[in-house]
Amino acid sequence: MQRTQAMTSVQPDWETFHKMGTSQKIPYFSKDNRLYDCLFAQQLNRELLEHLFRTADTLRSVTRTKDGADHVSSLLSDKRAMLYFAQPSTRTFMSFLNAAHVLGIKTSEIRDTSTSSEVKGETPEDTVRTFSSYVDMIIMRHPAPGFVEKTAWLMNRTGRPVPIVSGGSGKDQHPTQALLDTYTLYRSFNGEVDNKHIVMVGDLKRGRTVRSLSYLMKNYRNVSLSFVSPKEFRMEADILDFLRRHNIPFTETEDFAGVMKTADAIYMTRIQDEHDKSGESKGVDYSPFYFRKEHLDIIKKTCVIMHPLPRRHEIEVTVDEDPRAVFWRQERNGMWARAALMAYIFGVDGKIA
Amino acid sequence: MQRTQAMTSVQPDWETFHKMGTSQKIPYFSKDNRLYDCLFAQQLNRELLEHLFRTADTLRSVTRTKDGADHVSSLLSDKRAMLYFAQPSTRTFMSFLNAAHVLGIKTSEIRDTSTSSEVKGETPEDTVRTFSSYVDMIIMRHPAPGFVEKTAWLMNRTGRPVPIVSGGSGKDQHPTQALLDTYTLYRSFNGEVDNKHIVMVGDLKRGRTVRSLSYLMKNYRNVSLSFVSPKEFRMEADILDFLRRHNIPFTETEDFAGVMKTADAIYMTRIQDEHDKSGESKGVDYSPFYFRKEHLDIIKKTCVIMHPLPRRHEIEVTVDEDPRAVFWRQERNGMWARAALMAYIFGVDGKIA
Amino acid sequence: MQRTQAMTSVQPDWETFHKMGTSQKIPYFSKDNRLYDCLFAQQLNRELLEHLFRTADTLRSVTRTKDGADHVSSLLSDKRAMLYFAQPSTRTFMSFLNAAHVLGIKTSEIRDTSTSSEVKGETPEDTVRTFSSYVDMIIMRHPAPGFVEKTAWLMNRTGRPVPIVSGGSGKDQHPTQALLDTYTLYRSFNGEVDNKHIVMVGDLKRGRTVRSLSYLMKNYRNVSLSFVSPKEFRMEADILDFLRRHNIPFTETEDFAGVMKTADAIYMTRIQDEHDKSGESKGVDYSPFYFRKEHLDIIKKTCVIMHPLPRRHEIEVTVDEDPRAVFWRQERNGMWARAALMAYIFGVDGKIA
Repeated sequence: MQRTQAMTSVQPDWETFHKMGTSQKIPYFSKDNRLYDCLFAQQLNRELLEHLFRTADTLRSVTRTKDGADHVSSLLSDKRAMLYFAQPSTRTFMSFLNAAHVLGIKTSEIRDTSTSSEVKGETPEDTVRTFSSYVDMIIMRHPAPGFVEKTAWLMNRTGRPVPIVSGGSGKDQHPTQALLDTYTLYRSFNGEVDNKHIVMVGDLKRGRTVRSLSYLMKNYRNVSLSFVSPKEFRMEADILDFLRRHNIPFTETEDFAGVMKTADAIYMTRIQDEHDKSGESKGVDYSPFYFRKEHLDIIKKTCVIMHPLPRRHEIEVTVDEDPRAVFWRQERNGMWARAALMAYIFGVDGKIA
Repeated sequence: MQRTQAMTSVQPDWETFHKMGTSQKIPYFSKDNRLYDCLFAQQLNRELLEHLFRTADTLRSVTRTKDGADHVSSLLSDKRAMLYFAQPSTRTFMSFLNAAHVLGIKTSEIRDTSTSSEVKGETPEDTVRTFSSYVDMIIMRHPAPGFVEKTAWLMNRTGRPVPIVSGGSGKDQHPTQALLDTYTLYRSFNGEVDNKHIVMVGDLKRGRTVRSLSYLMKNYRNVSLSFVSPKEFRMEADILDFLRRHNIPFTETEDFAGVMKTADAIYMTRIQDEHDKSGESKGVDYSPFYFRKEHLDIIKKTCVIMHPLPRRHEIEVTVDEDPRAVFWRQERNGMWARAALMAYIFGVDGKIA
Repeated sequence: MQRTQAMTSVQPDWETFHKMGTSQKIPYFSKDNRLYDCLFAQQLNRELLEHLFRTADTLRSVTRTKDGADHVSSLLSDKRAMLYFAQPSTRTFMSFLNAAHVLGIKTSEIRDTSTSSEVKGETPEDTVRTFSSYVDMIIMRHPAPGFVEKTAWLMNRTGRPVPIVSGGSGKDQHPTQALLDTYTLYRSFNGEVDNKHIVMVGDLKRGRTVRSLSYLMKNYRNVSLSFVSPKEFRMEADILDFLRRHNIPFTETEDFAGVMKTADAIYMTRIQDEHDKSGESKGVDYSPFYFRKEHLDIIKKTCVIMHPLPRRHEIEVTVDEDPRAVFWRQERNGMWARAALMAYIFGVDGKIA
């Protein structure tokens, strides 16, 4: 990848920039007409999504032989990535780490900020700039809203930017989760995501995966959505407005059994009680929003059951053995989709086959 | 390695399975007539032990040159392993990690369960299944008795099993420690473990290494054992019964000096006071079970002094410089024996030379 | 590298050895006339420094292409290093780790001593010897004065020594920081460090970087130093004596603005309040020792501004965009200088080009 000089001359200051709309920001995180920093689900349009899905499919098939795996892991053998996870997340962390290893990228990691120089009074911005001194990409997860974006913005002002890939930022953005969820739909339906009825279930108010996935549905034709949740945790108005603007039909209901019969995909989520302000989750009966073994008799033979994991009790363990339960495959899809994304950012996506 | 479909049709449920005898369980953890999951010292018969020892010896000699080392580290360059150590153990962890690196296996690690999704209410079984999504082998240590075994059992019921290698489970099983201990005897005696007198010293009641090593002695002819311990920490009855059933002669004594003269190997252990229920270790005089510098004049010229490490005061530091003190070599043998085991499980043991 | 038998016959015991002068100790940490263990800034003479700088420069240029990077990362692909950081230091840790990866060295790490066997009562010496069983080099940082040196001394008495590289030991020694600081001077002045005026600013009493850098200045001709600090944190007498003995002129002042005009390099440091005994830092006005944006108009056009980082408020963030602010480059120089050092210790420095 050709490193290009940052656009210091044209960039507004951070306060101005941060208030801009997402679509206005996207060009700042691209280089040579390719996505460079991956920060927002909105950066993933249909063309890019399908290119990444095909790349992920190719990665899987090529790496089935040892020669193929060795070829793929030679493509980025000169690159080093840092995984900086200021917020714990085993699943996303391991998925990215192993995706990097598939491509031969060497990795270093911060998973526990108590060992970092932050204890010596360094600003988070200086800490991240330090990491960028040693590596060619930073994959980061951070609890502070906007921090990942700010990092990418700052890096692009320096003479030695490195791409920033978000592994989750604040409550809002987790673009690679949306990527892997959509990839799972794509694989489950043999590439045909158009014309599907997708049911999202649970704590829709506070789950960022269902929010991002809803955004991405505008890339597909004739998709309809059903939101099934307790009244306390209904999907937020901004998403509903977005869907209306893009003419994506949706319904809201508390009647899970009623809506599941026509579902092509059921996206289950757990209650997000870590976001409780004063224990409000305890007052909600979440059990009507569980997927139970008996539901397997009701849903379509082609319906898939998804879950971003980790789960608690939303899906009975005995459901796992049904072939329509794809959430474990969904998890594995995440590794391949992320590998495809990194290959794309480093410009070796064309060399995989 | 050909992934074979799990034997879901023939497997009993977990409760039934777990109560079965170890010898009955062993076939469930094999594939194509090879050990697949490594869980019990009892899986290691003489034929397999000696094959692994020869493999370890070959690994050592081949990797002495850079070309040899590069060849060996190309054998499993397409594999990824996860080290999941829910219980701290620097020594075993580092030994496995570097053994993986010798073979070119890429690694990811969990050493601190506080960063894991367990905090989000996930079951341990789901956590491990998640890890298995990204890698080709899981090496795990867990404090809960039976948990490693249950993981392997569960994995084998899925459509994408990965081999599980125990790095220590509960108080009972630590099969690769038994492997490296036996490998150390094998190397110390030029391959002739038959006809040896082995003295085990210390807290025999609560040390799992001496228990496993005792089991493995049934693979050798005419071995005799002496158990030297304070009366509070004598070897447990189940092991003594096992030895009687297999006609392995043993004695029990508190007289260390009396028995050391005829020893071919002295296996020292530390007091396991982390297993105290109410500080009982403090009431025991452990000092008669120390190996001291003056003992070097008493033992045979060919006798070897072993210790699973870490030590406290059981062996005086000045003893380390005596060539019969092999415990540091024993530790290093662990890395090579574990590398041989992993090479065997992945079926590349025949390609090392 | 040929492993040579330790010099057990000629080595004094630890107590005697430890009291010897640094220059007397240096031969014990060399092999075949090359530095083997890197413990003291005093081991780095001008010839070695410039050899390492040229090696680092070559590493940078060769690795700019993928073929070059792959060549360099093949040089030590048969080696394994352990990073044992008993004291947190993200920067130094990441710099060494990525330097190892540049050279293809496989790494394992201890960054949190609570996961180590130290909890089982093992001595630190045994812990380090354990690590050495599995790897070919140990890079370590330890808070206890003399501990890194003792480790190297102990290792050299065993039959299987591995080189020990200090990543910081106690309050005194951090030789690779001195290496990278000098490398930054070398690069900033196109290889001509002679005849320069270097100004060191801040907490000179307790900052080990300024101490080490002062030592290394004896390798250069006609260098003059200015020490700018609050009176509470003046450079210690031992360094001033050293400079007098080697005829290196220096001045001490509290007048930063007065001295900066003639500086060729300004080396900023933060207040080291983690070494406070009873909050003495709070009583000191540190703000006269800040580098501010307006100072950019005062200093020479060729003057460079350095900082070992992390910073707090000693350098205003807006200064970063001035080309004379080289502290981010200084950080990156660290990775290359450390890679050069490791290549040298393993004897592959001649194979890089």
